[in-house]
Amino acid sequence: MAKLDFWYDFASTYSYLAAMRAEALAKAAGVTLRWRPFLLGPIFKSHGLETSPFNKYPVKGRYSWRDMERLAARQGLPKFLLPVPFPANPLLAARAALVLADAERPEFSRAVYRAEFAEGRDIADRAVIGEVLAALGHDADAVLTKSGDPAIKDKLRAETEEAAKQGIFGAPNFVAEDGELFWGNDRLEQAIEWVRGHR
Amino acid sequence: MAKLDFWYDFASTYSYLAAMRAEALAKAAGVTLRWRPFLLGPIFKSHGLETSPFNKYPVKGRYSWRDMERLAARQGLPKFLLPVPFPANPLLAARAALVLADAERPEFSRAVYRAEFAEGRDIADRAVIGEVLAALGHDADAVLTKSGDPAIKDKLRAETEEAAKQGIFGAPNFVAEDGELFWGNDRLEQAIEWVRGHR
Repeated sequence: MAKLDFWYDFASTYSYLAAMRAEALAKAAGVTLRWRPFLLGPIFKSHGLETSPFNKYPVKGRYSWRDMERLAARQGLPKFLLPVPFPANPLLAARAALVLADAERPEFSRAVYRAEFAEGRDIADRAVIGEVLAALGHDADAVLTKSGDPAIKDKLRAETEEAAKQGIFGAPNFVAEDGELFWGNDRLEQAIEWVRGHR
Repeated sequence: MAKLDFWYDFASTYSYLAAMRAEALAKAAGVTLRWRPFLLGPIFKSHGLETSPFNKYPVKGRYSWRDMERLAARQGLPKFLLPVPFPANPLLAARAALVLADAERPEFSRAVYRAEFAEGRDIADRAVIGEVLAALGHDADAVLTKSGDPAIKDKLRAETEEAAKQGIFGAPNFVAEDGELFWGNDRLEQAIEWVRGHR
């Protein structure tokens, strides 16, 4: 079965759009998605960007919120809410996602994105992530405690380094087994075609 | 008839892709395209960018050349060639485009883009623009001379200021009569749907 790595950051607006539609599209195409959360912040920093380009270039940022509003509506998602301040700190959500089993990660990730961009909640807040976990039937306290383990911190650091090694500079991304990189929610369909051999 | 302004910069890679497909799509949808060349450089400068983001952020730049290769192939265009140095100076091409009549501008613009990104020629070279003009049956010397007129220089400056006023920060763009801005070759279909009333 064709495989595609889905690299996403919990603070990333376009990763939200991709997360809400990627699994259905991949499944329909017979492609297995591997959900790989990472941190875009350290990668931005290594390129000399101290914050999101949407903050550094406010005219672009304003456009992008409007683009998100339009695209969320087209995808049938609730009204897009911009977190204040933007970007939210994605660290806790990313660690918690890595505590969970591979099969549990997609549903949790979508629920975190929904809390952030459709309900306007602060995903840096342990109580918010705890509620998301509990609503999905997880032992919230156990997952939150484990998310502080050195092994989980190391895992997220290693994944972020791996993302950088693969040439990732933004989010979301889709990476084929041959290393072919597709950046952006707009490239999901093309990435799926690629791994299915239609180039 | 629904109208859409197509704002493009002659140095912009993704504007090339849009220019090669925009007219056919618009025509099929019953939408009139107005071709409006402008200069992205002064807009970048006003945002603190001294060169293309693809130069400022080289990892992003490298991805973007690969993306262009893939997209050009998908569009059935010749192998994508990156101008060296990048970006090319678009000033002469933009002025010449404004000398021509509205109806002559699309064909000339596509020919300039082809010379630049499919033939690897330097569009800052008067001889190259002259050949492009002559091949289309224009009086090359007359157009090149006129492109130095103060009225043409002022027109390009005014168009660039108008682009900035409309919230433009990149290229290409599609702007509806109600002011709705769509940035990027990827948004062409959505822009066409917008002006046709499907939102």
